[in-house]
Amino acid sequence: MTDPLTVHVPLDQGRDYDILIGRGLIAGAGARVAALGGKAAVIVSDETVASLYGDALRASLEDAGLRSGLVAVAPGEASKSYATYAAVCDGLLAHKVERGDLVVALGGGVVGDLAGFAAATLRRGVRFVQVPTSLLAQVDSSVGGKTGINSPLGKNLIGAFHQPRLVLADTATLDTLSEREMRAGYAEVAKYGLIADAGFFDWCEAHWRGIFSGGPERDEAVAICCRAKAGVVVRDEREDGERALLNLGHTFGHALERLTGYESARLVHGEGVAIGLALAFRFSARLGLCPGQDAGRVANHLALAGLPTTLQAVPGGCGDADALLDAMAQDKKVKDGALTFILARGIGQSFIAPGIETNAVRAFLQDELGAA
Amino acid sequence: MTDPLTVHVPLDQGRDYDILIGRGLIAGAGARVAALGGKAAVIVSDETVASLYGDALRASLEDAGLRSGLVAVAPGEASKSYATYAAVCDGLLAHKVERGDLVVALGGGVVGDLAGFAAATLRRGVRFVQVPTSLLAQVDSSVGGKTGINSPLGKNLIGAFHQPRLVLADTATLDTLSEREMRAGYAEVAKYGLIADAGFFDWCEAHWRGIFSGGPERDEAVAICCRAKAGVVVRDEREDGERALLNLGHTFGHALERLTGYESARLVHGEGVAIGLALAFRFSARLGLCPGQDAGRVANHLALAGLPTTLQAVPGGCGDADALLDAMAQDKKVKDGALTFILARGIGQSFIAPGIETNAVRAFLQDELGAA
Repeated sequence: MTDPLTVHVPLDQGRDYDILIGRGLIAGAGARVAALGGKAAVIVSDETVASLYGDALRASLEDAGLRSGLVAVAPGEASKSYATYAAVCDGLLAHKVERGDLVVALGGGVVGDLAGFAAATLRRGVRFVQVPTSLLAQVDSSVGGKTGINSPLGKNLIGAFHQPRLVLADTATLDTLSEREMRAGYAEVAKYGLIADAGFFDWCEAHWRGIFSGGPERDEAVAICCRAKAGVVVRDEREDGERALLNLGHTFGHALERLTGYESARLVHGEGVAIGLALAFRFSARLGLCPGQDAGRVANHLALAGLPTTLQAVPGGCGDADALLDAMAQDKKVKDGALTFILARGIGQSFIAPGIETNAVRAFLQDELGAA
Repeated sequence: MTDPLTVHVPLDQGRDYDILIGRGLIAGAGARVAALGGKAAVIVSDETVASLYGDALRASLEDAGLRSGLVAVAPGEASKSYATYAAVCDGLLAHKVERGDLVVALGGGVVGDLAGFAAATLRRGVRFVQVPTSLLAQVDSSVGGKTGINSPLGKNLIGAFHQPRLVLADTATLDTLSEREMRAGYAEVAKYGLIADAGFFDWCEAHWRGIFSGGPERDEAVAICCRAKAGVVVRDEREDGERALLNLGHTFGHALERLTGYESARLVHGEGVAIGLALAFRFSARLGLCPGQDAGRVANHLALAGLPTTLQAVPGGCGDADALLDAMAQDKKVKDGALTFILARGIGQSFIAPGIETNAVRAFLQDELGAA
């Protein structure tokens, strides 16, 4: 393999870390993890990912002189539960993870969030390494230190900010993703262009096929996304301000996930985000904030990449405008009953728009639903 | 009521807070909690404490303009479980605790640890206030930010460092404690003298009865203990060094709790600590580190206050020396298999002693067990 791309995340208080991006990083992970210190590195993964990469990662850790172990959970969002969290913590304790040791999260966003939260709270905090194996996790969830699980009362309501000590994004692992998972992750890639980097969105329009096929464009895109996210996280680690921009497309997207019962057969997170991005731009255009042409360009590009961009595209439907509003109001980004959206003045020009009137949102959604 | 005593805990990054100590603080808690900001303050308590002080605290919060609520758990250590933690988190969410709101822990150490951990992880962290109602909690567990629950694999293995924004130690609540609970808390009071303040131990010998009876000595003692603990916590928040001194008596004490199955009918934490303090001083004396006279003075004072000071005093016994060693080796303060003790060169002169040989400990314990 060639040298990986590196994105440094310069957090304070000795918490800075590197994100390495490249094909084949898992095979050489051991030396890099061992360089962090500690005697043991215990992997948390799901059964599917563990069967693909668990042995290779364990062998690499053991070769580097680390005692290793594996705690595997069932694949899927249902594992972000209190019960699985308890099982992972107890599994790590059974593997005798002590305060100086490491937890290694090997998998997609579910595994990263779950393992990160277990690491954040095991013995009041042990260090952890992210080895994201989905495009979504490589460009989004593995970077930035948000960890957590779901409550029956809502997604990601329980958790901790806990930064990894190292992120190894082995882009060869994406070769085994389904087309649907690739597309879903790609929605988050395009999002970075839409938030604040019009040039990157141009580049995506020209090069997106290389990301899917595993050309050098893939590593480059992952690195650009990680660099963008790292910048935001360093400036606003706890989402008191700017970090909320990363939620572009997510207020609508989360509502759609909720209304489809988080059934991945109907809608996965990235598909909700794709629809949400298209809606955020069309809503911005309707409010006179953004050229209609930009909204059209966003929807066209996402559709070209195979992603849904309308409420009609939700299999089984998503209810009426009031159901959507209710689902949005349950989102944790609601403050004092007022809806906060991330809107845009154009591609690459997003901003936080608090206090958006529900009547305006309702009228917009009714038109979107009627436009079938 | 007179003005409360105040201990300031000068932590960095805007996390400094006050500990207020005085009789009747609960009745006026609302204004002080409301001054922290937030719209809601939801109480976590146990059913016993809630029945005594829940209504008064809620009334005070509501009078100060805060929306309040109560989440009550069963009394006792068994509530520091994964299941109760999940129930408390979901209970707080059902009371619509948002990121700017407050959790108020009303109770002893179990409630403080549990509610603090729920606050640390609810929405990735909301602020919390400690209202400790046991002597143990007022002088120890409510100060310092250690929060957590137990795993089936060991006590306090799951948790977070999360500092309260305010501690209100209403010393009148101790009037309803049983004699046994008062004595158990008193073991931790005496501990502060033994760790690093010989003058305070002298004062305890002269004034301990006033602490029990609720005279002004009680408030003074709580303030002295909080000031001592706050100093240690500010210098070593995450127990990389000096903070370990607070575990004087605890390596033996935790082993005894483990061997008695955490059955409070047999041994409560403070009783284990009392025996542990006496053992730590006798072991120090046996190693030639500490005058035997000081070890005798420690045991005599604890016994005068009604506390156990020998292994024979454990109801139902505690097994042989090897069982004790095994139980100690499971303690989280073990590093790489070597035993770390907190020992003393005299009253008020404790120090961290890593790498103590198990053979020396075994011989000491055998003699202690044979001394019946």
